[in-house]
Amino acid sequence: MIQFEALFQISYGLYIVSSGNKTAGNGYISNTVFQVTAEPPQFAASCNKDNYTAKFIRESGSFAVSVLHTDADPDLIGRFGYKSGKDFDKMAGMHIKYGETGAPIVLNDCIAFLECKVVQTIDAGTHLLFIGELVQAEVVDDTKDPITYLHYRRVRKGLSPKNAPTYIDKSKIEEKTPASGLKKFECTACGYVYDEVEQDVRFANLPDDWVCPVCGSEKSDFIEC
Amino acid sequence: MIQFEALFQISYGLYIVSSGNKTAGNGYISNTVFQVTAEPPQFAASCNKDNYTAKFIRESGSFAVSVLHTDADPDLIGRFGYKSGKDFDKMAGMHIKYGETGAPIVLNDCIAFLECKVVQTIDAGTHLLFIGELVQAEVVDDTKDPITYLHYRRVRKGLSPKNAPTYIDKSKIEEKTPASGLKKFECTACGYVYDEVEQDVRFANLPDDWVCPVCGSEKSDFIEC
Repeated sequence: MIQFEALFQISYGLYIVSSGNKTAGNGYISNTVFQVTAEPPQFAASCNKDNYTAKFIRESGSFAVSVLHTDADPDLIGRFGYKSGKDFDKMAGMHIKYGETGAPIVLNDCIAFLECKVVQTIDAGTHLLFIGELVQAEVVDDTKDPITYLHYRRVRKGLSPKNAPTYIDKSKIEEKTPASGLKKFECTACGYVYDEVEQDVRFANLPDDWVCPVCGSEKSDFIEC
Repeated sequence: MIQFEALFQISYGLYIVSSGNKTAGNGYISNTVFQVTAEPPQFAASCNKDNYTAKFIRESGSFAVSVLHTDADPDLIGRFGYKSGKDFDKMAGMHIKYGETGAPIVLNDCIAFLECKVVQTIDAGTHLLFIGELVQAEVVDDTKDPITYLHYRRVRKGLSPKNAPTYIDKSKIEEKTPASGLKKFECTACGYVYDEVEQDVRFANLPDDWVCPVCGSEKSDFIEC
């Protein structure tokens, strides 16, 4: 038996994994970055084959990982996590530093970054596992804590995007019976659910400039579910 | 430049990864377990080639992951993290459930477990990366939170064992100048440092039955450093 709630007990951080060069680049939000060896330091990142960033990592042979802090802007998570770089330039207007490999490193809301040179690419089905040797690592801000996926889910009520290794079809998780008359509204961009049972304010009474707390989408992007 | 403190910002949980069967089995403490794909659910675990458990995973083609909670017993972490199953039977006296693959699953201080069938084994140098397809997942206790590696390091002052992917040679990290006359004592089993600068009690004044807060070793196992 697979009880999907058990998977929520695996701990992750939240990162922007980026790749490319000064001319073109892209990045995506990832929670699955981890160290695989200490000598030499090597890191693995799981990347959906459909992610636009996968193309940049394959072509450049390198990637960067920006560690986001607990106060990371929902707009930043929305930009890198729930929109595709095929539609617009995600790097435009961002605070970028170019690494030793030439990879763009996103410094917005970042407390530390890693830069890796790919040494192995593993085909894991829907995802590629890029294993990279560390070429650079730096602390950017030591006053804040890294955001964890638990915080993202529990405090921000965020969900994994469909391309994430940890995506779970909501129909697989038991739903609690809603209190009478209260409704749920889902963000069509990121899947965040505004549940009136858990909120003090009915959705209709939220101000017009209210935005999705997870990805920054507008109120009009929500549908009743 | 590689600033090793940056690596501390990558988030991990803390797990017992186990393998074997009813006759013989072993397990080790790991912080590097993560999901690589959602459909089908696959998980990766990084395991030092010298770990006794690697032999069991190779032979049986399966492994289990027990998620430890924040109050996990230091003795349990010491038993699985800082001692070798080559020297004694780690599974003896433990609360074990045998999984669908036959793998022993350690239920002590466990809030959830996963069981995986190995589908790929990647050679990453000092470590093997076992990629397994999920065959079973269960929540054991939903009243406690998973322990994170940040909590383990910051609250318990724990360090990665030498075989861990995240092991860092302490000489690579800048040391703060100790206050005059105060000393440090290191646990020879797990590397935990009792630093008198951070403690209210001098090491010599600790009671004889005091044990290492990380791995449960005795006071006599500490040396001045």
